[in-house]
Amino acid sequence: MFHRGAPIRFGVRALLVLVAAGMLGGLASAQDETEAVASPRWAIAVHGGAGKWSREMPADQREAVERSLREALAAGQKILAAGGSALDAVETVVAMLEDDPQFNAGRGAVFTHAGTHELDAAIMDGATLRTGAVAGVTTVKNPVRAARLVMERSTHVLLVGAGADEFAVMNGCERVGQAYFFTSRRFRELEEVRAAAGLAPLGTPAYGLPDEQPGETQPVPEGAGGTVGCVALDADGRLAAATSTGGLTGKLPGRVGDAPICGAGTFADGRCAVSCTGQGEQFIRHGIARRVAWLVVERGLAVDEAARQCLEEVLQPGDGGLIAVDRAGRISMRATTVAMPRGAADSSGRFETAIWFDE
Amino acid sequence: MFHRGAPIRFGVRALLVLVAAGMLGGLASAQDETEAVASPRWAIAVHGGAGKWSREMPADQREAVERSLREALAAGQKILAAGGSALDAVETVVAMLEDDPQFNAGRGAVFTHAGTHELDAAIMDGATLRTGAVAGVTTVKNPVRAARLVMERSTHVLLVGAGADEFAVMNGCERVGQAYFFTSRRFRELEEVRAAAGLAPLGTPAYGLPDEQPGETQPVPEGAGGTVGCVALDADGRLAAATSTGGLTGKLPGRVGDAPICGAGTFADGRCAVSCTGQGEQFIRHGIARRVAWLVVERGLAVDEAARQCLEEVLQPGDGGLIAVDRAGRISMRATTVAMPRGAADSSGRFETAIWFDE
Repeated sequence: MFHRGAPIRFGVRALLVLVAAGMLGGLASAQDETEAVASPRWAIAVHGGAGKWSREMPADQREAVERSLREALAAGQKILAAGGSALDAVETVVAMLEDDPQFNAGRGAVFTHAGTHELDAAIMDGATLRTGAVAGVTTVKNPVRAARLVMERSTHVLLVGAGADEFAVMNGCERVGQAYFFTSRRFRELEEVRAAAGLAPLGTPAYGLPDEQPGETQPVPEGAGGTVGCVALDADGRLAAATSTGGLTGKLPGRVGDAPICGAGTFADGRCAVSCTGQGEQFIRHGIARRVAWLVVERGLAVDEAARQCLEEVLQPGDGGLIAVDRAGRISMRATTVAMPRGAADSSGRFETAIWFDE
Repeated sequence: MFHRGAPIRFGVRALLVLVAAGMLGGLASAQDETEAVASPRWAIAVHGGAGKWSREMPADQREAVERSLREALAAGQKILAAGGSALDAVETVVAMLEDDPQFNAGRGAVFTHAGTHELDAAIMDGATLRTGAVAGVTTVKNPVRAARLVMERSTHVLLVGAGADEFAVMNGCERVGQAYFFTSRRFRELEEVRAAAGLAPLGTPAYGLPDEQPGETQPVPEGAGGTVGCVALDADGRLAAATSTGGLTGKLPGRVGDAPICGAGTFADGRCAVSCTGQGEQFIRHGIARRVAWLVVERGLAVDEAARQCLEEVLQPGDGGLIAVDRAGRISMRATTVAMPRGAADSSGRFETAIWFDE
């Protein structure tokens, strides 16, 4: 359409039409189609939370985190390689990491200020824009499964607190006691946060110190695990995202972060799927997950450049990170923290995990 | 810069620079500055919910709704005319409508499926992007005041459920029993919704039928009142938005709509402030409040055209409406329902209220 360097002659009206066409995605789709020739059929990425974990971490701890990421990634890969949906892949991967006490989601979730666990999760189907989320649940073993049920079996998109717990159980989610989520590592972190704020130690969680816990029958590695999330593109071209978290250590009871907020910590549409991790309040304020998707559509940016702009130009240094995948299977995994356990796989044979950046 | 109709001669590189400049707001700011000469010093708009109220409504009911809007608008006007902040104006206006049993916010809130009241509210300061919200509170007389306290006295932006109630009371919010929110009109609506779903009548709210209620000492007019919201520009050029609601009649306990979600039902930045009303799930999915603001920045649209595109091209017909004001004091008040009680005032002497469209 254009010949580089040749002068073009349009009236203002024609120029505006071109500008509008570019904004509406015309230029961006042309770009996508050009690169789609070499695109993978499916792609998936996973994260285990942005954080400040030291590179001095013992090898066995590092290996335990990477092994969990590889296992979760492999489960998602299996679903996608068999023609399964992006939605099933992200739910499965996130549920596996919720069950893993190394991560701050499901079992192993951090403690609120009051010594309890309150869990948030969301899932979104980019093909239909359907989405479901739960926040502040206290008895749901796998919050991401509850989020999917909210999406599929209610007319709502976000349920919180006791109503969300009740909905989840009535719809077949496995129910657990608060002690199920206990790990001594997270309780120690709470006591440290309380001490730093000049508060007396709690001594025990609000539900008492569990005698024996699934998460404690084997010592939980002091690894690099935070919020978890997954994004995927399936072979039918559908995108999906899911995120699950216990939130911030020492948060006020009732505090909801970005993970369960559509467009803040979790978002998927027809072009892009995004899952975020970090200072949730910042991700909510700036609507980061949706912003990545909008930059792809509105400015025709590659998904990795959109992610970079959000993390480096909109958020503050150290606020966190995100993973994203676009409809051509291009994956972005970035953070402005030193580390973000993460992994990526696609139909071209890519399969990799990492924890720190610039290694 | 351009002469209409004259041919322009640029290389592709120069064209792209121009396009980028336009997208980054260069063209839009020039436009704002041109029009700012005649701009009002301050401006404010209020809504009382998008809905399907019949034009056959008796004159006294219609008048009762418009009188409430005028009183709230006048209170906001007074703050802004005296040089007060947009933030104070929107909080005051929304709190007045929360106290008014005609509207579905605070006193007069609708009932959940279980015969209880669960209230949501948010406030946002466009100048700083600070924001606070509460959802699912059950004992806070004025949820919008609790939202402002979350913004100002916590490091969080969203508190839900019992934790939000506790935070509000500890920070000085007036506490009330659930029966404070009772109106027979809303309870009748719940019984109708339950009957339509084939469910047995509840007979009484979960807290029993109140003997005597502030909202019932004078019969509550069966007027056109729903969710409430306010947007304002103050004389210092700061924008703010606030929204408060009881949600949907017959909602699942724990359901959170768009009102307390930053970027869904409530948003303000340096360019634009927005408060929405309608099918909350749709406004969350599409991030409508933030989308209006983004269309203003990214496409250089006038705020009213941005609102029109969101309501008519993104949402479905009948999904709801919104009010918005930009930094030049231009106000948009639109809905795809037949009615949205609303009002607008500014420093040029404008002061108007209306309920239906196309009257």
